[in-house]
Amino acid sequence: MQIDILSLFPDMFSALQESMIGKAQARNLLKIDVTDFRDFAANKHHSVDDTPYGGGAGMLLQVQPIAAALADVTAKHGPAERTIILDPAGRQFDHQYAVELAQAQHLVFICGHYEGFDQRVYDLATDTVSLGDYVLTGGELPAMVMIDALARQIPGVLGSQESAATDSFAQGLLEYPQYTRPADYQGQKVPEVLMNGNHQLIRDWRLKAAVWRTLQQRPDLLAQLDDPQIAALVRELNRRDDLSSFNDL
Amino acid sequence: MQIDILSLFPDMFSALQESMIGKAQARNLLKIDVTDFRDFAANKHHSVDDTPYGGGAGMLLQVQPIAAALADVTAKHGPAERTIILDPAGRQFDHQYAVELAQAQHLVFICGHYEGFDQRVYDLATDTVSLGDYVLTGGELPAMVMIDALARQIPGVLGSQESAATDSFAQGLLEYPQYTRPADYQGQKVPEVLMNGNHQLIRDWRLKAAVWRTLQQRPDLLAQLDDPQIAALVRELNRRDDLSSFNDL
Repeated sequence: MQIDILSLFPDMFSALQESMIGKAQARNLLKIDVTDFRDFAANKHHSVDDTPYGGGAGMLLQVQPIAAALADVTAKHGPAERTIILDPAGRQFDHQYAVELAQAQHLVFICGHYEGFDQRVYDLATDTVSLGDYVLTGGELPAMVMIDALARQIPGVLGSQESAATDSFAQGLLEYPQYTRPADYQGQKVPEVLMNGNHQLIRDWRLKAAVWRTLQQRPDLLAQLDDPQIAALVRELNRRDDLSSFNDL
Repeated sequence: MQIDILSLFPDMFSALQESMIGKAQARNLLKIDVTDFRDFAANKHHSVDDTPYGGGAGMLLQVQPIAAALADVTAKHGPAERTIILDPAGRQFDHQYAVELAQAQHLVFICGHYEGFDQRVYDLATDTVSLGDYVLTGGELPAMVMIDALARQIPGVLGSQESAATDSFAQGLLEYPQYTRPADYQGQKVPEVLMNGNHQLIRDWRLKAAVWRTLQQRPDLLAQLDDPQIAALVRELNRRDDLSSFNDL
C-alpha cells in the first residue's frame, strides 16, 4: 500500500519508523511518503494561510497549496482510492473503518490545523474522519493513529502470533487478564489455575475473567452479544458478592 | 505541568517537539520527560517481556521494569495525581476527560504494547484509557494524542485566538464553514454574504451553516441541544430541497 501524507510538519512522522509500522515499510508492504505542502504555495513567501472572509479569529489554510500538493502526489503515485481529511466533525474512526481503509492500494491523508481549512479543501477529500469528540492541534497525530490501526489489517503486516491477540477483541469481549513471571511480585500472586497445566480449566477461567472484566468496564459490549454460554456466566457473576480481584474467580 | 512517559520507544515522542506542544514546553508551561523502562529491568539482558502463564500467543510486558521506572519518576518528580495506562478496554477518551486531566500538576503515562501487560501493571495505574474501539500497536501514539488534547486545556498554552476556535465545538454544533483567499478558486466561489461586510447577516449565515452541517454529519449532537433558535433553523432546513452546497444557504 502507498500512503501519501500532506502536512506542514513532516518531521513528526518519524514516529512511524518505529515498531511494527517501521518493519512493514522495511518489508515493502507499506510505503509512506510525506509531502510538505508549503513547498507548493504559489507565492514567493510560501505562505499557506490567510484570514477568513467575513471576519473571525485565527488563520485558515488555503486551498491552493493543498490542491497543488495533491495533484503532485497523484501525478507520482496515481489517483488515491481514498483522500482523508482529519476533522472533529468527521465520521468516527473505529475497527470497521480501519478494515475498510486497509483494502485500498493508495491512501492520501491531508493534515491541517483544526482552527481551520478553507471549506474548498474538504471538497478535495473523499473521507472526513474524526478520532473522537475532542480538539487537537493538528491532523498529524490522528493520521498516525489511523495508519497504525489500518496497517495492522494489511495481510502480512502482523505475524500470526500478534494477529491471534487481536481476535479476542473482535469476538466482542475485553481481553482476559494475563500474567508472566514472577509468580509472586511483592505479594501479588498469579492465579493458581494458570499454573496447573489443565488447559480446559485455563480456557474456562479465561472466558469467565473476560466476561467479568467486560461486565465491569464495558457492559455495553455484552448487551450486543447473543451467546448462551456468556449469558450464563453473566448471571453467575452477578450473583457472586465475594469478587474483588481476578484471584477470586 | 510535569508529564512523565514510560515507554520502550522514547524516540517516537520527538513528534511532541513541534507546533503548540513544543511552544508550551519552551515557555515552561509543560515539561515532558520520557523514561525507557528497559533501563530498569533487573536482569542482565534488560529483557522486559516473557511468555504468559497458562499458555497463549505473544509475549507480555513484565511488572518489575515498569514498577521500577515508576518508582524512579516518583522519586524525581513526586507522586503523580494520575497514572494512566492506554488500553482498548479502558474508559473512552473525550473532551471532558481532557479537561479533567488538565487540572493535574503531574501525570504519568505508561505505554505498552497491546498484545499485553502482566495484569499487575494495571494495578499501578489510576486510569485505564482507550482512544476508541480499534487496536493499535502501542500506547505511544494514543498518549501523544491525549497529551495534545489535554495540553490545550492548560491555562496559557493557547493564545486567545486559538481558544476562540474551540468554543464552537463546546457549544454543541459542528464548526461553520470558513473561506479565505482566493474568492474564486477554479470556479469554486466564496459565498457572497461573507464578503459584503454586514456582520449581523454573517453571524446569521454562520449559525445556519453550522446547523446544516451538524444536521448532515452529526444529527446526534442536535438531539442533545435544547435551543429554540436552533430548533427553528432545523425545521427550516428540513423543508428546503434546493440545498446542495453552502452557497445555496
